[in-house]
Amino acid sequence: MGFFITFEGIEGCGKTTQLRLLKERLEAMGEKVTVTREPGGCPVADQMRAILLDAKNSAITPLAELLLYAAARAQHVQEVIVPALERGETVLCDRFTDATVAYQGHGRGLDLAVIEELNRLATGSVQPALTVLIDCPVEVGLSRALARIEATSGDKEERFERESLLFHQKVRNGYLTLAAAFAERFVVVDGSGDVQQTGLLVQEALCQRIESLSRAGLTPIKAGC
Amino acid sequence: MGFFITFEGIEGCGKTTQLRLLKERLEAMGEKVTVTREPGGCPVADQMRAILLDAKNSAITPLAELLLYAAARAQHVQEVIVPALERGETVLCDRFTDATVAYQGHGRGLDLAVIEELNRLATGSVQPALTVLIDCPVEVGLSRALARIEATSGDKEERFERESLLFHQKVRNGYLTLAAAFAERFVVVDGSGDVQQTGLLVQEALCQRIESLSRAGLTPIKAGC
Repeated sequence: MGFFITFEGIEGCGKTTQLRLLKERLEAMGEKVTVTREPGGCPVADQMRAILLDAKNSAITPLAELLLYAAARAQHVQEVIVPALERGETVLCDRFTDATVAYQGHGRGLDLAVIEELNRLATGSVQPALTVLIDCPVEVGLSRALARIEATSGDKEERFERESLLFHQKVRNGYLTLAAAFAERFVVVDGSGDVQQTGLLVQEALCQRIESLSRAGLTPIKAGC
Repeated sequence: MGFFITFEGIEGCGKTTQLRLLKERLEAMGEKVTVTREPGGCPVADQMRAILLDAKNSAITPLAELLLYAAARAQHVQEVIVPALERGETVLCDRFTDATVAYQGHGRGLDLAVIEELNRLATGSVQPALTVLIDCPVEVGLSRALARIEATSGDKEERFERESLLFHQKVRNGYLTLAAAFAERFVVVDGSGDVQQTGLLVQEALCQRIESLSRAGLTPIKAGC
């Protein structure tokens, strides 16, 4: 089985960029890497992504949103993640179950037990071995995210960027709560610096963690530090 | 609170036509009627309907399909059904939770306990007071459904019509099992005749049932028989 790493964090934290940099480093070391993202990651789930992120769909209820994330995840896990892991590849996924706990649970206030149950159902209990949380203040993340929207003269996928500062604060706190509760799975990295600074921090943190997992025989991939 | 009636049955059984006829009869008696359908029934859920019924989406997994139905239902119940019932209207809905038990449970073989749990979650326990099951042999229903697709020179919403005869047989058996288990809620009508014949049977069966509910003070609507 391959190695499953997820990247998490609030809007504009830099996780997508850091995921891409890790992909390049791993491939340079000869690893086979599958890069994917949620919501979406395959054609059927991408159609669900379009509904979830479209700013026009402000009428979507929190419960419908939660169930739609679960539907997209079920498709993505079965169609993309499990087959890639079975081929022995390293899977890097931009957002996964923790995002649902942080956004729909801590952000929207939905019942955490229901979310956990749906996450279990949708994933068939497939879990990341490592989760990189890129943490930064919400003001920093949101200003980057809004600048990106402006630079691309509007983005259809901006429903979450349009949420209040308080909502994003709750999401950030949700992520930090998760990282504390599952410290053996999470690697928390300060994302308030620039791409290079954060990249060095991610590499350093992952190297340590992968070295120790590797020594324990828990990962086939090399740290390359 | 208004009165909630659902129509169920396999493809081509005639439920949509019969629902429309009942609407006309109820409105002629002065009832305020909301007609709706699943999957869909409101703009956000209709986007999910498009994914569910598109014959191009044959890759959708049974679990993702189940969760997507639940998502569409959660939106529909909160946005359309509950508000209409709260306005005191009679709601006629073309397919509802029983369809998920019949199609995804009996048809696809998914765990019935999981389906019941998702139905409860998505509906907030809102249930129809009456369910009209239009029953007919699968060969009769499917030949009507396929003739309709041919007459409209192809229909994007034909993923279920393309399923095997055996699948539809399981769905029909699922519906009949539900009707036996919830006999106080279900009205089963033979739909193998023409529109008028079936219409008379629906009216007769509903009149009896609504009269007795009305005598028990369980419905505000009149039978009009």
